[in-house]
Amino acid sequence: MELLLLSNSRSPDGGYLSHAQELIRAVAAGRKRVLFVPFAAVTFSWDQYTANVQAAMDPLGLVLTGAHAAGERDIAEAELIMVGGGNTFQLLKECRARGLLQALRARVAAGLPYIGWSAGSNLACPSICTTNDMPIVDPQGFDALGLVDFQINPHYTNALPAGHQGETRDQRIAEFLAANPQATVVGLPEGDWLRVSGTRTQLGGPFPARLFQGGREAAQISPEAVLAV
Amino acid sequence: MELLLLSNSRSPDGGYLSHAQELIRAVAAGRKRVLFVPFAAVTFSWDQYTANVQAAMDPLGLVLTGAHAAGERDIAEAELIMVGGGNTFQLLKECRARGLLQALRARVAAGLPYIGWSAGSNLACPSICTTNDMPIVDPQGFDALGLVDFQINPHYTNALPAGHQGETRDQRIAEFLAANPQATVVGLPEGDWLRVSGTRTQLGGPFPARLFQGGREAAQISPEAVLAV
Repeated sequence: MELLLLSNSRSPDGGYLSHAQELIRAVAAGRKRVLFVPFAAVTFSWDQYTANVQAAMDPLGLVLTGAHAAGERDIAEAELIMVGGGNTFQLLKECRARGLLQALRARVAAGLPYIGWSAGSNLACPSICTTNDMPIVDPQGFDALGLVDFQINPHYTNALPAGHQGETRDQRIAEFLAANPQATVVGLPEGDWLRVSGTRTQLGGPFPARLFQGGREAAQISPEAVLAV
Repeated sequence: MELLLLSNSRSPDGGYLSHAQELIRAVAAGRKRVLFVPFAAVTFSWDQYTANVQAAMDPLGLVLTGAHAAGERDIAEAELIMVGGGNTFQLLKECRARGLLQALRARVAAGLPYIGWSAGSNLACPSICTTNDMPIVDPQGFDALGLVDFQINPHYTNALPAGHQGETRDQRIAEFLAANPQATVVGLPEGDWLRVSGTRTQLGGPFPARLFQGGREAAQISPEAVLAV
């Protein structure tokens, strides 16, 4: 299984997926035909989302078909799966309603690389229970693709706006682990990613990540570290 | 219907529900027996939560029974309902699993005052779709008590931690309205509350709130204003 799970789409220089270009090139490894899953887009169209990502992928020679416009043949002939960020609940709802979860799982198990960012990284987890998104629609169950055994919290930070009294991210993850004590959560800061190759999961990017497990102190994951998950 | 829906529990001076004491006294209007719904607590026990709120309510002479420990008679004899904050998903899940949603709806319709804060205010809305909480458990449907016709976004702020690239609150609410164009959302800043009496809903507290409706510019709600919702 070959996965590239990015925390977010925007690079520190403001470019769209620009920090991910060389990573995506390496994962694609010459493949061209991409099935792009745009269902996390809520306030703009899936056509527009597909066009935006196509523009970012033009330098890599990738050719995207939006899953909203894809037929069975497009899915069968795709060489790479790419799942964009946005609202995780709508992403999961649309994938479930279209029977796409099983199809994606099967294609990834058969060796197709999977590249996701933000909501697209959450979709690769056992459930979407560690998303930061607002539950704007009911996805009819929180279980997701389960391509990895752990949960990702994308856009990870423990900071709050000054003076704000809502829960910190660490408190939210602690609540998740209290309700799901067997789970593991990786808090993945913006700019970072996880590269899964077979059973090996390595942290990439400039920042340390955080590893949360029930009944243990949270631990730091150093850049380039291979995760013991 | 008599509702007091607070954005949050912590007053600016750091006291627990201290900014709400006189409000609660006015809403209670001499009633004493409170059914307290503690199910939003995740990382501490429902006994502990009930004891904490009891301590804060001692000066008002209120006597709390936790809904986790309540029998049918406690529910039938309650004079006031109080629903505490914490994780909205767990709160709704437990209320649904215990058949408490119908019971609470019936008692409030019969005239029992309802006081909620944070998750407890979200529970009074048509759904919990405008919570800020992490979806740590599946509530088996997002529909909630529907005591009011509008959605509340508690702990409302549009600020992000410096440098953070996740969605702002206004973007999240815009996504909710794109998916639910007929809905109305009140962004309720910390320290504020809504007082619903019959068909009249008034903003209380020191800060202006924000009114979001599909296809319209967000509007400011001034302190003490009666809402046109």
